[in-house]
Amino acid sequence: MLEMKKQLLDLQEYLAKKDIDIAYISNPTDIQYFTGFYSEPAERILALLVFPNKDPFLFAPQLEVESAKKAGWDKDVFGYLDHEKPFDLIAGHIKDVTADPLHWAIEKDDLSVDKFEAIREQFPNADFLENLSRYMENAKLIKTDDEIKELIAAGKEADYAFSVAFNAIKEGRTEQDVVAEIEYAMMKKGVMHMSFDTIVQAGANAANPHGAAEKNLLKKNELILFDLGTIHNGYISDASRTVAFGKPDEKSLDIYKVDLEAQYAAMDAAKPGITAAELDKVARDVITKAGYGEYFIHRLGHGMGQSEHEFPSIMEGNDMVLKPGMCFSIEPGIYIPNVAGVRIEDCVYITEDGCKPFTHTSKELTYIEG
Amino acid sequence: MLEMKKQLLDLQEYLAKKDIDIAYISNPTDIQYFTGFYSEPAERILALLVFPNKDPFLFAPQLEVESAKKAGWDKDVFGYLDHEKPFDLIAGHIKDVTADPLHWAIEKDDLSVDKFEAIREQFPNADFLENLSRYMENAKLIKTDDEIKELIAAGKEADYAFSVAFNAIKEGRTEQDVVAEIEYAMMKKGVMHMSFDTIVQAGANAANPHGAAEKNLLKKNELILFDLGTIHNGYISDASRTVAFGKPDEKSLDIYKVDLEAQYAAMDAAKPGITAAELDKVARDVITKAGYGEYFIHRLGHGMGQSEHEFPSIMEGNDMVLKPGMCFSIEPGIYIPNVAGVRIEDCVYITEDGCKPFTHTSKELTYIEG
Repeated sequence: MLEMKKQLLDLQEYLAKKDIDIAYISNPTDIQYFTGFYSEPAERILALLVFPNKDPFLFAPQLEVESAKKAGWDKDVFGYLDHEKPFDLIAGHIKDVTADPLHWAIEKDDLSVDKFEAIREQFPNADFLENLSRYMENAKLIKTDDEIKELIAAGKEADYAFSVAFNAIKEGRTEQDVVAEIEYAMMKKGVMHMSFDTIVQAGANAANPHGAAEKNLLKKNELILFDLGTIHNGYISDASRTVAFGKPDEKSLDIYKVDLEAQYAAMDAAKPGITAAELDKVARDVITKAGYGEYFIHRLGHGMGQSEHEFPSIMEGNDMVLKPGMCFSIEPGIYIPNVAGVRIEDCVYITEDGCKPFTHTSKELTYIEG
Repeated sequence: MLEMKKQLLDLQEYLAKKDIDIAYISNPTDIQYFTGFYSEPAERILALLVFPNKDPFLFAPQLEVESAKKAGWDKDVFGYLDHEKPFDLIAGHIKDVTADPLHWAIEKDDLSVDKFEAIREQFPNADFLENLSRYMENAKLIKTDDEIKELIAAGKEADYAFSVAFNAIKEGRTEQDVVAEIEYAMMKKGVMHMSFDTIVQAGANAANPHGAAEKNLLKKNELILFDLGTIHNGYISDASRTVAFGKPDEKSLDIYKVDLEAQYAAMDAAKPGITAAELDKVARDVITKAGYGEYFIHRLGHGMGQSEHEFPSIMEGNDMVLKPGMCFSIEPGIYIPNVAGVRIEDCVYITEDGCKPFTHTSKELTYIEG
């Protein structure tokens, strides 16, 4: 909770510096970042209101009020019932704090136009120039020690999931069967939500980096690609491993060797001072030199923390310099249509002189007899 | 696909009648409704552009273009790459169809402010007065025969899930263990996504209608509440059953009896001509007369189809008259804090002279010895 208070204090300082009267925070993950309370309100209204020099308050469906308090939120939380008009109530609570706030910060990447119009109707003199989504991206860029502890714990869960996954590979099973085994085992451990749909792709199906587990049967002598992650206290893991079921052909083994070399090269190069674009190039150069450049069709990695949609993006054109506490994926992939696909991925955090991965499952090619 | 074409033709007719030049559709479920293609684009851009007198087109991340065609979309689909500026491209494609569209319909309940501002920048002369979210609610209000077939199929999956659930009740298991058994069995059947987090709540935990499955152990002589659903070809099921594990106390048995009577009364009353509010009152009166009115703390039901957030809402104050083809839940609940909770729910569709449920699992109190 101390850490959360710092996050709120930082925001209040920013609002004061920018002469902003009020911040309306609507993104559920961002609300969790400040309050410790997560809820996906669907068509209902959940908002955190923050002021430069007054206490913030939470506004939530009445049914969620107790849950917010239980989650550790010790400032005001105002509830509303389904038949009440939420924006009338929010306006009333705001006016109790500050009579007529003029300069607003809103999360433009999250807030829907209808809710924005409802707010503007209540405060016709206000401007809404500040897009707080940009502030949030920067605020989350450097993870605190407490956040890294949660990410390490989530990484351990992903490692456990891989051990289940590799044991679940058997002839006669489909990719979807293996997903079922993984998610079942995780639930039995109390991990009720994966951070995204678990991916199991065998043979040529793995050549589609946007694909999903299908009903096709696992066959011997193919590579099998896994991409999975969990959610631990609101922080995610995300990792990929590719393993050999039986004895894959030479081509498959060669792209595995090259992809692993690229992944290791990027892990070695990831340290304070290098830019995101340079890091992407380290891995890409390895793959290009081996002749597979055209088959590495996505960026090297994405920032992560509470979600896999954070900064920094590890891609060409991003000149952001890496600093201690930044967290992102390193996931080179080689996808040869109709043949095979390989992706090897760890998420890492930048330290004073390098990087450390959140997942530790071996990356040397694992052979599974099944 | 024929049916989808009718849905698009209806929208085109509406746009022509309202003198709207262009509709920008951004809600993924609505895009699926018109195109058959579903994708959750996260921070990327996915949009369907519809014009009163010209062919519509889809705009999607390049990686999704083939999937859209595979899903049956036979009009234009334009892709874009991550480093390209999507709204520049969208504007170009729009201008190829119609030089300077002035009157726009947008889905204000879905479109974020930042995307809205990006569109407005491209079309500075345009107005954005029409909120297409209202049109969509009405368009989806009466389900077609084809849609009802999908909903019936989804209901069958929910019935299967209940049979798994009841067999999974055993001393020594937690609520979460039972969720694991249910979702595992569904995945083994090829149902990879439930329509919402499966709810299993035993004893007093069921008294929280917004609660979730916890780690607490199932105990004999308590009621256990299940609320679950699946997704079948984009259409959902959603149903609740409450069962007796051993021999619950008299109070628990009494609230079950009353809740079931209320559910049957509403099923009998649901037919063309009655209003949503009147139907809510039929069930509420039964519960109130039995002395439990204060413990029925939510509306009787919600509309459903592609999601559980459709119309009609079966609640006090909604004077909408029910008509054949409307689909919604009938789910009276009685929640006595620190004692027990009962909810019995079927989703139904209105027929010419009554209603039919999508789920058929017995509602007579089932006793499980475990």
